[in-house]
Amino acid sequence: MELFPGMNGLLDYSTYIFDLDGCVYFGPEPAQGASGLISLLSGLGKRVLFLSNNSTHSPHEVVQKLQSMDIHVLASDIHLASTLLARYLHETHGSLRLAVAGEKFLHKEMARFDHTVVPLDDTSADCLVMGRYLSFTFDCLVECVRQLESGGHFYVTNLDTHHPGPEGARQPETGALAAAVSAVTGKTPFSVGKPFPYAFTSLLNDLALDSRDCLMIGDSLNTDVQGAGNAGLDTCWLNPGGASETPSDQPNSPTFTFPGLAEVLATVQQEVR
Amino acid sequence: MELFPGMNGLLDYSTYIFDLDGCVYFGPEPAQGASGLISLLSGLGKRVLFLSNNSTHSPHEVVQKLQSMDIHVLASDIHLASTLLARYLHETHGSLRLAVAGEKFLHKEMARFDHTVVPLDDTSADCLVMGRYLSFTFDCLVECVRQLESGGHFYVTNLDTHHPGPEGARQPETGALAAAVSAVTGKTPFSVGKPFPYAFTSLLNDLALDSRDCLMIGDSLNTDVQGAGNAGLDTCWLNPGGASETPSDQPNSPTFTFPGLAEVLATVQQEVR
Repeated sequence: MELFPGMNGLLDYSTYIFDLDGCVYFGPEPAQGASGLISLLSGLGKRVLFLSNNSTHSPHEVVQKLQSMDIHVLASDIHLASTLLARYLHETHGSLRLAVAGEKFLHKEMARFDHTVVPLDDTSADCLVMGRYLSFTFDCLVECVRQLESGGHFYVTNLDTHHPGPEGARQPETGALAAAVSAVTGKTPFSVGKPFPYAFTSLLNDLALDSRDCLMIGDSLNTDVQGAGNAGLDTCWLNPGGASETPSDQPNSPTFTFPGLAEVLATVQQEVR
Repeated sequence: MELFPGMNGLLDYSTYIFDLDGCVYFGPEPAQGASGLISLLSGLGKRVLFLSNNSTHSPHEVVQKLQSMDIHVLASDIHLASTLLARYLHETHGSLRLAVAGEKFLHKEMARFDHTVVPLDDTSADCLVMGRYLSFTFDCLVECVRQLESGGHFYVTNLDTHHPGPEGARQPETGALAAAVSAVTGKTPFSVGKPFPYAFTSLLNDLALDSRDCLMIGDSLNTDVQGAGNAGLDTCWLNPGGASETPSDQPNSPTFTFPGLAEVLATVQQEVR
């Protein structure tokens, strides 16, 4: 059923790719409508995937968090920035010696893709790899600077400076830590996380998906709407601020705009009837 | 005695204002010639002052450090960014409630200038004040962001992203930490440290100095040469990289350029003869 003749309906896709932070949950709090929407889509035989710049958790940890929110998915459907970067580095450069400033899973993924993880103060590393790092300190900043001054290349899981937490409070992300390192060294980090094409095209290629059959759902105009739009996907922008924030100067307009997942769910339910 | 007729000689000043980091010392190592130059100038009856964006130490601690390098000066001749900011805030706004991300002396100076220092997570503060903070952590970044989201104004002791340490290695400075906070919040910090005029004019006013009688000696083209030049001072740029790095696109050319203090000392000794 089409709500607007000649336009796409929310149900006209075979695959729904959700962002996580600021979309499905806000820190420890689930988004209203998330559980209902994801189970309705799954019940309708749609494929539900998750593509996130999260670099602090493993897919298994995300599954457990989602389970606690009554959202039931498989770890293999969760695609995270740590894995994307580990894989990209191996595809592009083979096995590397990597100094890693990030959480345990980032280290683990680098090792799983045949890289050798060395201590952050070992300046024989080929690259500095940085993710969101909850144990980041001033000394860690000093070591990151030394890595880059020793000739290491600078890779980050993502360039997001923040993601929304509970009540919209900004939670610092990888890009904020990278900004400190860049300020000292003048070096710009390289990322393959959203909005960069690799994040989307590697997912589409792996699962043999046609971009035209996929809808990306997320809260970030830059990473989710522009990134997915550039990769040929339709997009659903979650904009709690309302119409006044609708972008006019962006090349890819969102296909759909809703305040949040509760309103997406209500519209999908209308379309199903 | 003039080395070059019609031009200033290095001895044509009554007052010599030295930068500290990257000028008089590199981390724990004294600069070659520093001790000899400073004692020669003092012996010639010149006034020797220090103006630094250092925000981690007190003047008394700097005196002790200089003493260990055989440089003997008074604490009252050392002017640091922590004091400048504490004083500026009081002159401009009166007593404030300040959340302070910085070392002990920064807290102490804020209290000395009648401000109330509150914990970093107390969002009732009027301002966030940030200095070089060796105990900076990810959690501290979160608290700084929360301060600014709660409406606090953002002040930093200085905007330097780094200063030179031993063997030229870049030591992260206040501006690098501020870059992380700015990346998340989009808020630009306000500073009165070098190169901003307040750093120079408050020193000149306090000591009733004429800018034309003062020579600023430092390694930073931006903070020392441009900042002092804008305040009407002649400048001596320490440029270990040699002539190839001489600036051409800066409004204030340095009055003198030397590789380091050893060469300044040698030239002053020639002028004395």
